[in-house]
Amino acid sequence: MNAADTLRAQMLALGREARAAAGVLREAPAATKNKTLMAAAAAIRAQADDILAANAEDLKAAKDLTPALRDRLMLDAKGIEAMAKGIEDVAALPDPVGRELARWTVPSGLDIARVATPIGVIGMIYESRPNVTADAGALALKAGNVSILRGGSESAHSSAAIHAAMVEGLRATGLPEAAITRVPTTDRAAVGLMLEGLDGTIDLIIPRGGKGLTSRVMAEARVPVLAHLEGVCHVYLHAKADERMARAIAVNSKMRRTSVCGAAETLLIDKAILPTIGKAALEDLARAGCEIRADQAVRAVLPAAKAANDADWSTEYLDAVIAAKAVDGVEEAVAHIEKYGSHHTEVIVTEDKKAAERFLTALDSAILLWNASTQFADGAEFGMGAEIGIGTGKLHARGPVGVEQLTTFKYVVRGNGQVRP
Amino acid sequence: MNAADTLRAQMLALGREARAAAGVLREAPAATKNKTLMAAAAAIRAQADDILAANAEDLKAAKDLTPALRDRLMLDAKGIEAMAKGIEDVAALPDPVGRELARWTVPSGLDIARVATPIGVIGMIYESRPNVTADAGALALKAGNVSILRGGSESAHSSAAIHAAMVEGLRATGLPEAAITRVPTTDRAAVGLMLEGLDGTIDLIIPRGGKGLTSRVMAEARVPVLAHLEGVCHVYLHAKADERMARAIAVNSKMRRTSVCGAAETLLIDKAILPTIGKAALEDLARAGCEIRADQAVRAVLPAAKAANDADWSTEYLDAVIAAKAVDGVEEAVAHIEKYGSHHTEVIVTEDKKAAERFLTALDSAILLWNASTQFADGAEFGMGAEIGIGTGKLHARGPVGVEQLTTFKYVVRGNGQVRP
Repeated sequence: MNAADTLRAQMLALGREARAAAGVLREAPAATKNKTLMAAAAAIRAQADDILAANAEDLKAAKDLTPALRDRLMLDAKGIEAMAKGIEDVAALPDPVGRELARWTVPSGLDIARVATPIGVIGMIYESRPNVTADAGALALKAGNVSILRGGSESAHSSAAIHAAMVEGLRATGLPEAAITRVPTTDRAAVGLMLEGLDGTIDLIIPRGGKGLTSRVMAEARVPVLAHLEGVCHVYLHAKADERMARAIAVNSKMRRTSVCGAAETLLIDKAILPTIGKAALEDLARAGCEIRADQAVRAVLPAAKAANDADWSTEYLDAVIAAKAVDGVEEAVAHIEKYGSHHTEVIVTEDKKAAERFLTALDSAILLWNASTQFADGAEFGMGAEIGIGTGKLHARGPVGVEQLTTFKYVVRGNGQVRP
Repeated sequence: MNAADTLRAQMLALGREARAAAGVLREAPAATKNKTLMAAAAAIRAQADDILAANAEDLKAAKDLTPALRDRLMLDAKGIEAMAKGIEDVAALPDPVGRELARWTVPSGLDIARVATPIGVIGMIYESRPNVTADAGALALKAGNVSILRGGSESAHSSAAIHAAMVEGLRATGLPEAAITRVPTTDRAAVGLMLEGLDGTIDLIIPRGGKGLTSRVMAEARVPVLAHLEGVCHVYLHAKADERMARAIAVNSKMRRTSVCGAAETLLIDKAILPTIGKAALEDLARAGCEIRADQAVRAVLPAAKAANDADWSTEYLDAVIAAKAVDGVEEAVAHIEKYGSHHTEVIVTEDKKAAERFLTALDSAILLWNASTQFADGAEFGMGAEIGIGTGKLHARGPVGVEQLTTFKYVVRGNGQVRP
């Protein structure tokens, strides 16, 4: 066999084991899953030295990476504790499997229940953050799913060490070790095989990483994908905005953390308040260290701002940069967001209920907020516990993807001998 | 421009119009959508002669088709009335858009609502049944979606005539005509362009047709697909089955209509009741005109049965043929269904609650019934009104896909100035 055939055979074998494990996971009791997760968290703590040593190896090999990428790759004692605590938090969540989502009786007398069930086998494809190995594995397991984890080659040693600890958890309760499967090769062709579905084994692919990775996955996948492509999020300061609120929300939406997908990238300001509240909010942003790229109207009140070009309106900076534009009322704001946005998260700041309702109704983003920061676009803030990401597609799940969103459902129908005429 | 470039330009233009129409449809009031549907139904009736004439043209060109295909293609006055009535029934359904699916408050004080919204633009790819043009267009419109309809070339005249009547409905209320778009070419390359998504225009593809069409769509689509692949449905007669019920459900599940995806294809019989209830059910089936392909144990009690081969256990006959096999209890039945089934619909007939619950829990099909016919796998029987099909995938919607399943959701979050620490 040549290398490609060997890899294919290896990946298909791994897929078959994952599929077999899915049958066990589907029926695993909540207590078993939770005990597994607690044991995995304990193993992460117990094996902290091994994980740090593995991480040091990755870092040594990663000398050519940018500081930002090195930062994502690096683990320390605090990071390991956060990982263990994160797994325990997932264990503490209510079990999402078996929930009765709806139940009704039809005229034929059939009693119909819609019941939450695991999805099956989820392929996770991610980049340099090694902690995804723990997060993704734990969330999938909690929802009764098998995960096939394929992390970036630059974090291969770290991921292997973290994965070893997760497997300790599985061993502690006797769940199949394939329930959290790690792709043991850094060959990029393995990703292509996963995107083909491993012969019908993979039910869902979730990419976690930059736009390049996500775009490739969406373009090439032969199986369903749950993805967050990008977050070009907007804050719209309406003419009837409260000044204190407008300034606080504009600054918080952009500057609390600039690297998250829920960070604001464009500020829209009603012309009526541009010289007053708008100007004040822009000055707050500038003072907080944010670069402002503005249209002509905004630059008229803030001459220090750079001129924006058309690309700025659709750019996800993920940095201390914001595009700013004056608009003439809610309809122009809505039209701008529809044209340039990414259907992730948008905010209107206003005391005018009618304007707010118009904004909330007219737009079609996963999350629309009235008088609150875009940075609330987060599973934990939504009360869902941990999340695997924010879905920006239209199907299955939009917004934060937590353990409930990692389930599907089946219909359980109880009759007493009904046949159809 | 060569022919391929011309077609591409034409399809992309059609996509852009559909996308623009989706913005209008998304906000169309329920009353407008319903008035549109009533006007379309009236136009179908008023233009019955044109539709029948168009259908006659299709039939004339279709001399080489099999009788079954001709039958699917043919329309008569009764069929046209059923189509019009079907559209009126869709109009009478509750509006699925704007439903509050969930609402809760989180510790930060944010009020979070999950609200049903249209999906956007749905591409429907179907074969010879011309009535799908009316059904699919109406269901999509009711859920606030634009549809791009691509019917089979053999029903092109009929579909065009039905589509003209649907457009009359749109004109009556001033909704954009592109809200129900018909692909005006029978060039097969148009399907390929739809599967690529028409430059991000198409949010979802729904194929309706045989396994060949659905497999092609699933293999080639670059956008999400909601599909029913096949229905290898099982009836399992458990040792504790009631005789009357077992016989009635076995015959009804197979023979009421053999051509529907919810028809049973395999009968599993517990060995304990094979010579009694099982034999009686098999004889009922044979008397009703059903061919039986059986394993050795079943042939021992019914020597007239043909021998089944391994392919029979995974065949969707869609005909008066059933595969029959003896099993030793619920675990063997579950294992057989997991191995050979298509995760569509399965039935257990038993008076034993524990056996029933085991069957309903262990299996992972879209629909699991206890003591009722598989032929209840139908949107109308589920109380959902009309359906576009039965989803057998894992994501977004499983089981009957009605107007509610043709929506997605967004989060509407109301605050009073919250920012994140």
